[in-house]
Amino acid sequence: MNIHIPRGTEDLLPEQTKTWQIIEDTLKQLSERYHYHEIRTPMFERTELFQRGVGDTTDIVQKEMYTFTDRGGRSLTLRPEGTASVARSYVQNKMHGNPEQPTKLYYLGPMFRYERPQQGRTRQFTQFGIEAIGSADPAIDAEVIAFAMDCYQDLGLKSLKLVLNSLGDHESREAHRQALVDHFKPHEDELCSDCQMRLEQNPLRLLDCKVDQDHPSMQNAPSILDYLNDYSQQYFIDVKKHLDAMGIDYVVDDALVRGLDYYTHTAFEIMSEADGFGSITTLSGGGRYNGLIQDIGGPEISGIGFALSIERLIMALEAEGISLDSEDELDCYVITMGDEAKFAGSKLVYQLRKAGFIVDQDYLDKKMKAQFKAADRYQASYAIVIGESEIEQGVANIKRLEDGEQKTIAIDDVKAQIEQGL
Amino acid sequence: MNIHIPRGTEDLLPEQTKTWQIIEDTLKQLSERYHYHEIRTPMFERTELFQRGVGDTTDIVQKEMYTFTDRGGRSLTLRPEGTASVARSYVQNKMHGNPEQPTKLYYLGPMFRYERPQQGRTRQFTQFGIEAIGSADPAIDAEVIAFAMDCYQDLGLKSLKLVLNSLGDHESREAHRQALVDHFKPHEDELCSDCQMRLEQNPLRLLDCKVDQDHPSMQNAPSILDYLNDYSQQYFIDVKKHLDAMGIDYVVDDALVRGLDYYTHTAFEIMSEADGFGSITTLSGGGRYNGLIQDIGGPEISGIGFALSIERLIMALEAEGISLDSEDELDCYVITMGDEAKFAGSKLVYQLRKAGFIVDQDYLDKKMKAQFKAADRYQASYAIVIGESEIEQGVANIKRLEDGEQKTIAIDDVKAQIEQGL
Repeated sequence: MNIHIPRGTEDLLPEQTKTWQIIEDTLKQLSERYHYHEIRTPMFERTELFQRGVGDTTDIVQKEMYTFTDRGGRSLTLRPEGTASVARSYVQNKMHGNPEQPTKLYYLGPMFRYERPQQGRTRQFTQFGIEAIGSADPAIDAEVIAFAMDCYQDLGLKSLKLVLNSLGDHESREAHRQALVDHFKPHEDELCSDCQMRLEQNPLRLLDCKVDQDHPSMQNAPSILDYLNDYSQQYFIDVKKHLDAMGIDYVVDDALVRGLDYYTHTAFEIMSEADGFGSITTLSGGGRYNGLIQDIGGPEISGIGFALSIERLIMALEAEGISLDSEDELDCYVITMGDEAKFAGSKLVYQLRKAGFIVDQDYLDKKMKAQFKAADRYQASYAIVIGESEIEQGVANIKRLEDGEQKTIAIDDVKAQIEQGL
Repeated sequence: MNIHIPRGTEDLLPEQTKTWQIIEDTLKQLSERYHYHEIRTPMFERTELFQRGVGDTTDIVQKEMYTFTDRGGRSLTLRPEGTASVARSYVQNKMHGNPEQPTKLYYLGPMFRYERPQQGRTRQFTQFGIEAIGSADPAIDAEVIAFAMDCYQDLGLKSLKLVLNSLGDHESREAHRQALVDHFKPHEDELCSDCQMRLEQNPLRLLDCKVDQDHPSMQNAPSILDYLNDYSQQYFIDVKKHLDAMGIDYVVDDALVRGLDYYTHTAFEIMSEADGFGSITTLSGGGRYNGLIQDIGGPEISGIGFALSIERLIMALEAEGISLDSEDELDCYVITMGDEAKFAGSKLVYQLRKAGFIVDQDYLDKKMKAQFKAADRYQASYAIVIGESEIEQGVANIKRLEDGEQKTIAIDDVKAQIEQGL
């Protein structure tokens, strides 16, 4: 009986990994230009980290985590997102003491959430994300947003929408929170049970309830933008001025509320506006977190970051008809006939690869005609033939497959000949 | 209170990930030259896969797996090695039907084993491995071994030892197994309890028992090489002839027994002979598996592969004093003074990055002198200064830090100027 892949997970096969490699190389080069460095954290963390760092009241922590007990009795959880792990590493490795500040990091790898699988949503998915920790300068909020947009633009995407909001600082959020409670309290009985709980725990999250989105009280709910204090207002103005200076378009949407609890000030999302992208158009999002580092035991230091799903990025590429595929092309295919020629073939293949060429040969004792067919299928530039008579004379026949031009030369000269072309 | 990283796992910080990136790029380029393509399988599989594909009697399955039950009640296990997952994907995706055979795949990523942490052994570690499935040609055994050696040689390692053995085909192994039972049975009471169990289940594994290695019966134990039938003998001779043709040195050691149950014919290990490498000198190993694909529900198709630990590869680099570090170098560091200059700075940084340059600026409102110091620390080629007077005149001052040469030009011309050099 076959054993299948776990539900909600996917294999990436060679025809897909080529596209992934191009995307990942693009994101790495972008990170270099923006001067962010890679950090890698483990696939799992102590469960407590996500309870504190993502938030006990979030869907992620309440419903979606892969939590298990290891053989030593510790509760571990496969990471559902990247920011909490990066923050944990920042605190543990005392990165705030490094001479280079802010600390600018990126990560790339699998994340795990136990959700109902659907198109573009798998239980293991892949996030690329960045974190800039140690600066509360509106210029770096703009840098992070510009970086996020470049991730898509560098790959050729055009139908993008950047949505921006400010959640304000702690004081502004508290004022808004109170206004939300005052506004929704009279309608409490008409709201869904989740929203009734949110009204106590986190009223901001009422605003992205899917069940109650058409309730009349949602239409005139208090806007955070009306409750920003002077500092928060100026901060938001400056972020927008930096984006304007860069020439990056955005729309402000005061309904943009990020699912995680620790965001303050800048929040943003990037949407695909491509036709046929699907109903959930959000590609990625990010924002400023000014309490997170402290929440998990570090100093009072603020950060900002964003994360994108590579799976959704690929959906956006498909929706815009952008193909990143590169061809599978060999430099040389070595064709041998006869027992002794096989050993000479192995030697030549080895030498050509050592010299940097992409080379393959037959490993199924195919007839010569079938070997030539393989050379064609792999789009080899040269077929190099060693048969029994060639072995006797110490030669090989090189054929340029593009035009059929060929030459018979000493087998020891093949490498040099290929290096200079026929 | 701080939350620490889980025991037996490690963060890779920016000063380490640079080395990792160079290693991984080298391995990917090597894969391309050898014409192997990347496959990515999930971090976890159904537990049954490893029970069947790695073997119920192995230490991995009995003691070291991270096994847990998901919210849907399925038993899942974090992958302890890569071959079983690749074989599962090969069967599930019916790769034996692809026109290109053998199927040559590589993988690179985290693996998980609950072991006692020690130097060079972590509970999450990283493997690079390849599998060539669908050929039983000794030439491809030699290809896999050559590839394995190149992984180290391409990174500059020299103190390497290749150890080779043949475990024979099924018939040869059975004959050897019987000889081992006959040989050890009279000494059964003198052996450790693990070995007494192995005598029943898998007597081959007696030969790599650490407890009984000095027992006199080990000295004259029957050698597999004396029990190879004609086919297995010829197979081993041909593998060695291919390696000889390539000029790859090896030593044959009939005590080389791989820990996994599914190996047949060719088995090999690569050791570091560098001084101070540590007591466990094995860097990587591999071999032929002729029953695995069938064991997990696929057709009767044989394969060969190998896997290396990147962590141990890095230990070998350190033991040989090889450093792959590249410097953190900026093309430009943009220095601004005053509020308006900040916005102009953001715009310029953005434009220069869009043009492909590695650029950064200050996000901590530092004084000019401190900003110049940061430019030096990051080894920037150019410092570009925009102060209040520059803003008024629409100019910027470009300074080449290597020799102090400088020039003041229109701010809109900076990008073109940097592109052509000062």
